[in-house]
Amino acid sequence: MALIVQKFGGSSVANADRVRNVASIITDTYKAGNEVVVVVSAQGDTTDELIDKAKEISAKPPKREMDMLLASGEQISIALVAMAIREMGYPAVSLLGWQAGVLTSSDYGSARIKSVNTTRIKAELAKGNIVIVAGFQGINKYDDVTTLGRGGSDTSAVALAAALHADKCQIFTDVDGVYTADPRKVKDAIKLDEITYDEMLELATLGAQVLNNRSVEMAKKYNVELEVLSSLTRQPGTMVKEVVNMEKMLVRGVTKDVNVARISITEVPDVPGIAFKIFSKLAAKNINVDIILQSVGREGTKDIAFTVSKDNADLAIEVLKTSIAEINPDNVKLDTGIAKVSVVGAGMETHPGAAAKMFEALYERNINIQMISTSEIKISVLIDAEYADEAVAAIHAKFLPPVE
Amino acid sequence: MALIVQKFGGSSVANADRVRNVASIITDTYKAGNEVVVVVSAQGDTTDELIDKAKEISAKPPKREMDMLLASGEQISIALVAMAIREMGYPAVSLLGWQAGVLTSSDYGSARIKSVNTTRIKAELAKGNIVIVAGFQGINKYDDVTTLGRGGSDTSAVALAAALHADKCQIFTDVDGVYTADPRKVKDAIKLDEITYDEMLELATLGAQVLNNRSVEMAKKYNVELEVLSSLTRQPGTMVKEVVNMEKMLVRGVTKDVNVARISITEVPDVPGIAFKIFSKLAAKNINVDIILQSVGREGTKDIAFTVSKDNADLAIEVLKTSIAEINPDNVKLDTGIAKVSVVGAGMETHPGAAAKMFEALYERNINIQMISTSEIKISVLIDAEYADEAVAAIHAKFLPPVE
Repeated sequence: MALIVQKFGGSSVANADRVRNVASIITDTYKAGNEVVVVVSAQGDTTDELIDKAKEISAKPPKREMDMLLASGEQISIALVAMAIREMGYPAVSLLGWQAGVLTSSDYGSARIKSVNTTRIKAELAKGNIVIVAGFQGINKYDDVTTLGRGGSDTSAVALAAALHADKCQIFTDVDGVYTADPRKVKDAIKLDEITYDEMLELATLGAQVLNNRSVEMAKKYNVELEVLSSLTRQPGTMVKEVVNMEKMLVRGVTKDVNVARISITEVPDVPGIAFKIFSKLAAKNINVDIILQSVGREGTKDIAFTVSKDNADLAIEVLKTSIAEINPDNVKLDTGIAKVSVVGAGMETHPGAAAKMFEALYERNINIQMISTSEIKISVLIDAEYADEAVAAIHAKFLPPVE
Repeated sequence: MALIVQKFGGSSVANADRVRNVASIITDTYKAGNEVVVVVSAQGDTTDELIDKAKEISAKPPKREMDMLLASGEQISIALVAMAIREMGYPAVSLLGWQAGVLTSSDYGSARIKSVNTTRIKAELAKGNIVIVAGFQGINKYDDVTTLGRGGSDTSAVALAAALHADKCQIFTDVDGVYTADPRKVKDAIKLDEITYDEMLELATLGAQVLNNRSVEMAKKYNVELEVLSSLTRQPGTMVKEVVNMEKMLVRGVTKDVNVARISITEVPDVPGIAFKIFSKLAAKNINVDIILQSVGREGTKDIAFTVSKDNADLAIEVLKTSIAEINPDNVKLDTGIAKVSVVGAGMETHPGAAAKMFEALYERNINIQMISTSEIKISVLIDAEYADEAVAAIHAKFLPPVE
C-alpha cells in the first residue's frame, strides 16, 4: 500500500462534471489499494470573482482580510469533491488548511509553509478516509487564515507529501506533462517522461507555467517525487525527480520568455563600487536583475546593460535616473522589444558543445544574439522579440530533431 | 462605554453598497464610544447558490460536507464588511466561528451552541478593533465546522451577546421592527416599541419571521436585551426584553399561519391508550402535532382531529393508515385548506375577556371556527384559509382599533 498525494487545479474542478471526473481519478487510486490525500484549488474563476468583490469595496484591501476572503474558494471545492466521492460510495472527509495542520509564516497573501502537523490527516487515513485538503491556505501563529499566493496549491501538495512521507505527489493540470517546448508553437515538441528538479526549476522560471516554482524547490529539498499529468486523459505524465536517465537526452526543453526588458547605461565612470551601487539600489526596491553585461566604453567609462522583468522596468529606470549621482540620466536607455530564449538540460554540464550548437541554430536563421547568460544546466540568449518563436523552433530542431 | 453586538442578515450585505451601508452603521456605533462586535450572515442568495452546487453533485449530500460548504458564505461576507470598515479608516478584524470561540454540538446542519470562548474576541476589542464574526457557524469537539441551521446567525449574535455580557444585541433586518400584524396585509398594523420574550416566541412560531426562535429562547435564558431594527432606516426598532410596559396593550400581535394541515380520524375505538399510540407513532417520525381535538363519535368510538405542518401531512397520513391496527384507513381524512389565526399578548393572562373578544370579531364576519387552542399568552383558532386575511384584519381592528 502506497500513500499518494494528488493535487487538482482550479480548471480540474471548475464544474460538477469536472468534480465527478476528479472524484473518479481519486477513487480509482483508492480502489487500487492506496492511501490518498488530495489537495484542491478553488473552482475555475472563483478566486478572480472574489478579488472583484473585494475591489468593489476597496482599491487596496487589507491583506489579512483578503486572505480570509480568498480562502473561502478552496473551502467550496474541497466540500464538493468530498461530496462527489461519498456519492460514489467511498469514504471521504474534507479539511481546511488549519484542520490539516498547515502552519505558515504571517505574510498574508504570500505566506510560506513553516510546518505541517499531520496528526489529523493521519487519523483520518487510519479510519480509511480519503482526505481532501484545501490547497493554498494555512494558519499563522495568531490563528489567522493565510494564503500562499497564486499557485500555492502546488506548494500545499508538496508540503503534505513531504510531511506525510508520501510515495508520490501527482500534480494534475490541464496539460498532460512537461514538453521540450510549447507544443502549441513547436510541432515537434516532445513530452518528457522525466526531468530533474533543477531542470524543472529552470523551465518553470522561464515561463513553462506547469508547476509553481516554490513547489519544485520544496520537492527537491524533501526529495518528493512529483508527477505532472492531465486530469482529463488517463495517460502517464512527466516525472520530476532527483536522478533521471541522463543518456537519453542532452536537452530537456527550449523556452522563450517575452517578459523581459533590457536597460543599458552608457558612459558610467569607471570607478570601484559603481556596479555595487547600481545593483544594491535596485535590490532595495525588490527588483530582480537577470542577465548582466559590462563592457568597456569610451575613455575612462564603461557601459552596463542588464535585464529585468517588464513590470519592473519603469521603476528601475526611475531609480537609476534619480538616485545615482554618477549616472547621467540621458545615458539610461530601455528596450522592451526583446525576448529571452533558453535551452535547459542537466546533460549540458558534461557536453561543452551545447552552447555552440545553440548559437549555430541562431546563426543559420541569421538571428542576432544581444546578450548571453549561462548556468550549469541552462543557456539563455537575448534576441529581438520578433524572432523568438522562430529561434525556439530552430534550436529545438537542432537539439531534438523529429524522429523519422 | 457600552458593548454592543450588532447582527446583519444576508439582505443587509447583499452587495457592495449594502456592505458600505452596514459599515457606516457599525462605525457610527463605534464612533459614539462603544465596543462593537458584529455578526454577519452570508450575502443575499449565496447560501442558496451553494446548496445548488451541492445538489448538482449529490441529491443528499453528507451533512458534514454541507456544513463545510455553507460556512464559506459567511466567510466571504465578514471579510468584505471588515474591508469596508477599514476603507472608512476604522480598525476591524474578521473572525470565523472557530476563531471567535463558538463551540457547538456535533449535529451538522443544526448544531447547538454549547459555549463561547471569548478570549480572542476580548483581545481584539482590547486592541480597539471592531470585531466581525461569521454567524451561523462554529466548530464541534472534533474540530469540524458546523452550522446552526437557517436563521442561525441570530442565535450566534445572541450567544455572543450573552457570553460577552453585552449591553445590547441589535438584530438588523429588512423590516423596521415587530408589528401587531403583517403591515402588508393590515393597514392599521402598529410597530411595537417593546415586547416580551414569550410574546416574541409565540409570534415567531406563528410565522412572523422576524427573529429566529432559538435566538429568542436564548435571549430570554440569558436575559439579553434584543432590538429588532432595519439596516436601511436609522429609526429605533422594537425592543425584546423581559419586562415591558404591560398597561399599554392587551395584545401584541395578530398572525396567520397557512402552513397547517388538519387530519381527522373518525370512528376510533374508544379504548385506553389509543391516543398515546397515535401520537407516539407520529413523534417517532419527528412529526410535530399542534392543536388536538377529541370528540365523542358514534357508539363506542371517538373522533380525533389534529393539525400538523403541511410538509408533514403526507407522512402523517401514511403512518396513521399503515401502522395502527385500530384505525380504519378509510376514516383518515386530510384538509389543507385551512389557516391558523392567533392573537398573542402577555396581557391576556389577566384579561379573561380576550378569547370572547376574538370570537366576537370572527362571528361579526360570519367566519366559522373549526378548532381552538389557547396558552397563557396566545389564542389560536383554525379557520377556512380563504378567510384568513379577513380574520386577521377583523381581530386586529377589535383589539387594536386605529387611533383617530
